[in-house]
Amino acid sequence: MRVLGVDPGSAVTGFGIVEGAPGNFRYITSGTIRTRPGDAMPRRLLAIHSRLLDIVDEFAPGAISLERNFVARNVQSAFRIGEARAVAMLAAAERGLPLFEYPPNLVKLAVAAFGHADKEQINYMIRRTLGLSPEVEFAHDATDALALAVCHLSRARAPRLVDAVERRPRAARIRP
Amino acid sequence: MRVLGVDPGSAVTGFGIVEGAPGNFRYITSGTIRTRPGDAMPRRLLAIHSRLLDIVDEFAPGAISLERNFVARNVQSAFRIGEARAVAMLAAAERGLPLFEYPPNLVKLAVAAFGHADKEQINYMIRRTLGLSPEVEFAHDATDALALAVCHLSRARAPRLVDAVERRPRAARIRP
Repeated sequence: MRVLGVDPGSAVTGFGIVEGAPGNFRYITSGTIRTRPGDAMPRRLLAIHSRLLDIVDEFAPGAISLERNFVARNVQSAFRIGEARAVAMLAAAERGLPLFEYPPNLVKLAVAAFGHADKEQINYMIRRTLGLSPEVEFAHDATDALALAVCHLSRARAPRLVDAVERRPRAARIRP
Repeated sequence: MRVLGVDPGSAVTGFGIVEGAPGNFRYITSGTIRTRPGDAMPRRLLAIHSRLLDIVDEFAPGAISLERNFVARNVQSAFRIGEARAVAMLAAAERGLPLFEYPPNLVKLAVAAFGHADKEQINYMIRRTLGLSPEVEFAHDATDALALAVCHLSRARAPRLVDAVERRPRAARIRP
């Protein structure tokens, strides 16, 4: 099983591909898609979209793992995040890939066994998990994307635990 | 000049095409793209995206006019709006069409000469502006999209007025 993790942003979108299972993860590739600050949003979205399709076509992942956001600095920021997320969702649908979404604390839990781990801890744990020596360079912005891929692959180990955290409680239905 | 107005939403996306200039507008078509409530967001975005591309290819507009949102009920709602907006932006970029964004009060100002006009007033004014008799049926959800198209075509008459409302003030730069 090979998974593409995507951490979408209108300026920088991180991506990372991992395959295998807990205890036997393999790092495949990772990087960032950077858009030009001077470009209008349609052009930036086009750049992110076509690059993601290229990555899917080159590395043939079986699923996409996307960050599910619950918070944003403000409404404008939420619009921008939604716009960048959409092109990743669209790429998944266009290539017929299942898309899974995980909230940040669940990703941290899966990677660092600690839901409030900071960026350095995640970076350290991702390197350890993927067996990358400290000399191996990969884009810092790609860490979150690799963590998303690892998070999805870790579901196989403890699906019920993950589901419990992932699912939000539904309103109870009361019948007379 | 023919313009496609798009009022994006993950459940219902309104579209409307108008051509001409103030005093001589022609209604071309309008309608709604409805997605299935049970479908996951990637599939819904794919449906909106491919239908918008079909509309562009069939009616060959020269520009797309999109609502620019500043407010949302909450952050989750802003994410959803951003996601639906993105596929319209992407369709514009993919077909090389310039995309223009207008805030709701500016659209109302252009159509009803009143920035706080309600839905009924906009509907009445759009019908009058486009010379549609009250018997002509068009989807209610398409009204805002037609208004967006009319708003863009009205720029030619008073570009400076429109620009003045459209542009947001920039923070003043203070130099020593």
